[in-house]
Amino acid sequence: MPTGIAILGCGTIGASVATMLLRDHAIITRRSGQRLQLRHVIERDIAKARDAGVPRRLISDTFQTALDDPDTQIVIELIGGLEPARSLVLQALKAGKHVVTANKYLLAIHGTELLAAARKAGRALMFEASCGGTIPIILALTRGLLANDISRVVGIVNGTCNYVLTQMTEQNEPYADALKAAQAAGFAERDPTFDVNGMDSAHKLAVLAGLAFGVNVPFEAIERAGIDTLQDEDLGFAREFGYVCKLLAIGDKADGGIALSVSPTFVPREHMLAAVRGSFNAISVTGHASGETLYYGRGAGGMPTASAVLADCLDVALGSAERLIAQLPAFQKRRPAKFLPARQIVARYYLRVTALDAPGVLAKLAGILSNHGISVAGLTQHERRATPATAAGTVAAVVVMTHETTGGAVAKALKEIDALPEVAAPTVRIRVL
Amino acid sequence: MPTGIAILGCGTIGASVATMLLRDHAIITRRSGQRLQLRHVIERDIAKARDAGVPRRLISDTFQTALDDPDTQIVIELIGGLEPARSLVLQALKAGKHVVTANKYLLAIHGTELLAAARKAGRALMFEASCGGTIPIILALTRGLLANDISRVVGIVNGTCNYVLTQMTEQNEPYADALKAAQAAGFAERDPTFDVNGMDSAHKLAVLAGLAFGVNVPFEAIERAGIDTLQDEDLGFAREFGYVCKLLAIGDKADGGIALSVSPTFVPREHMLAAVRGSFNAISVTGHASGETLYYGRGAGGMPTASAVLADCLDVALGSAERLIAQLPAFQKRRPAKFLPARQIVARYYLRVTALDAPGVLAKLAGILSNHGISVAGLTQHERRATPATAAGTVAAVVVMTHETTGGAVAKALKEIDALPEVAAPTVRIRVL
Repeated sequence: MPTGIAILGCGTIGASVATMLLRDHAIITRRSGQRLQLRHVIERDIAKARDAGVPRRLISDTFQTALDDPDTQIVIELIGGLEPARSLVLQALKAGKHVVTANKYLLAIHGTELLAAARKAGRALMFEASCGGTIPIILALTRGLLANDISRVVGIVNGTCNYVLTQMTEQNEPYADALKAAQAAGFAERDPTFDVNGMDSAHKLAVLAGLAFGVNVPFEAIERAGIDTLQDEDLGFAREFGYVCKLLAIGDKADGGIALSVSPTFVPREHMLAAVRGSFNAISVTGHASGETLYYGRGAGGMPTASAVLADCLDVALGSAERLIAQLPAFQKRRPAKFLPARQIVARYYLRVTALDAPGVLAKLAGILSNHGISVAGLTQHERRATPATAAGTVAAVVVMTHETTGGAVAKALKEIDALPEVAAPTVRIRVL
Repeated sequence: MPTGIAILGCGTIGASVATMLLRDHAIITRRSGQRLQLRHVIERDIAKARDAGVPRRLISDTFQTALDDPDTQIVIELIGGLEPARSLVLQALKAGKHVVTANKYLLAIHGTELLAAARKAGRALMFEASCGGTIPIILALTRGLLANDISRVVGIVNGTCNYVLTQMTEQNEPYADALKAAQAAGFAERDPTFDVNGMDSAHKLAVLAGLAFGVNVPFEAIERAGIDTLQDEDLGFAREFGYVCKLLAIGDKADGGIALSVSPTFVPREHMLAAVRGSFNAISVTGHASGETLYYGRGAGGMPTASAVLADCLDVALGSAERLIAQLPAFQKRRPAKFLPARQIVARYYLRVTALDAPGVLAKLAGILSNHGISVAGLTQHERRATPATAAGTVAAVVVMTHETTGGAVAKALKEIDALPEVAAPTVRIRVL
């Protein structure tokens, strides 16, 4: 008996999943020993589904057709957004279907509710494609590293941002031009707000942190800054000091709790995450026994994402998914957790102070940092990068790389530094991995 | 009911598995919902097991104790080598135990027999820890990428070699010194022959290719060259031309069959594999839908390997392993395959010709390459790297980077080139990824 599948929504990913089910069934069966059968594509825009090569008889605009079909075991939700996706997933579970989804937004906001509904229905809710596209990161967190206490998850999980940052770093393109290039190359949405402001990365971090730490993640626990806050100048300094700037989603488990943040971060050039270029994604996971591990691949695109969606379907067909969902605490009984503000996490920082080129400024800066217990790993005054002279005199960039400290200490020091009469603009602060 | 476990062999990995089972049970249960119970450690050297913190009552030197225990469901084979490992694994399966092993040598030589025995016994035979240490690469091949036709597997799967090559590349250390440093750092065995000659990598490639391509891999189908054949000079040229030299295990699926080889290979500096430094491992897998993916982590060491061993045990405890082994063609009914000599695979090559500094040599070289249909991407004569003058005159290195060609065409061209009176030493040929 084949495993019957209904696809909800025939956009880019839906069309690719349909294509693979219709065209690649020999590959899928040869590799998995399973037969997956496309039975329904629910899509209002029939022409869109026809264009994807779906036979007319499989296309319907009423979900009930799929729910009523006893030979459809899996519903793949690919319509995105919160509603009606949430209601349809709940409906599918209630009707006894397993659900596979790529919808990180839905999972970040309603994950707890949906997992509870799956538990109640005794069905699987799988979401490998929700984070990192084709990368089997959920698999790594829930199986490969299952004997590990996970202390850290760090991901490049938004291809648009990584493409833009790569262009800015390697081609010296200004932010606006790089974003336009990303749109032209088809990597960025026409409205890329949720990509560049870090919202999409935060959704994915909510999903990853929930599984890695086994806790409920209230979405508002995630601190967030996007690449839209970056200045070209800082990418140049990153390079100069041996770093590459990446938008990182970071989940840290510290003594007192968990800190979650999305922000542009300087990554040492020799770290694997620094080598992730263009629209690729990668997630680094550190376990107490495994040490650091990393998973890399295409974070978006129809076929790569369909690969992850179908891996979930095969997991259901092989009878593993249901058992996993029923038994794993990360799916079944997440613990409440204390969330720490990122300022409590120990890290290194890059600071760029815009100071008047007056005697004594460096001494004052060093004094304030020292008063807050921040020790300086490197301090350089960059005259050649000075912005145009202001009325008050020549302005220079003073770049400070700190040793390990807390964001809280840095914030306090910057408050004093930015109040100095010699400081001409708010100091830029970027975390260093 | 906990899942009972017997460990066969209490060396580095065995001791770490025992430590995790005895010390980290709270972590394991919190993450997996499963209880794993260490019931037996089979080790002749009782002091060794005691040093690992194993209570005396769990240590035995007779395997039968574990086989006779109805509450022991899993036997972890960690003694290494072919015999008695093979016989003990067969015995365990016959006695109805699931088997978890880290023994790549055993799997490369007797994998088909052992998988058949597992099938017959209706038990799982799991071996995540056999390739890439802690990296969940078997999981990726058998689940994460299960909907993909895999066209290529490329791995840095020997930490010793990667450590040596990293030292040679980054510290300009000669081969012998770098190998000594690896031994001093504890990465290389006292007798590192099987590491540096590529044998260990070939064992792992046999395991990976069997799963990726779903075929029986006769071990002798793997062509092999180690890092012991490398000359320091070529690593310098690699750097100069934008490459990093790595020992790669490569499985290529071509039109007519599968080609498997282990050899030093030039990797473009911007490729993720080039960023894998020191004793770390990484495996790149390319699927028709996923595109290129990569998995990175510690390839050896007690705790990282124990992480993979226990992931397999938890897969058994969760009831997934047995189903997977029973249903996946890659475990159950591997196809016979045609194996191609690596010379039929299309690739780029680096050639270093040692030529007398005489007029007309370059023209002759270019002519021979052209006659064999090899087009040249770059050709440079390096006088400053010339080896000391010979009786016949000054000798210079002529470095050629080819466009895509076959190893067969290159071999024919080199036969003619090395027969030229102006060529003073056998030409060095290294594949380029």
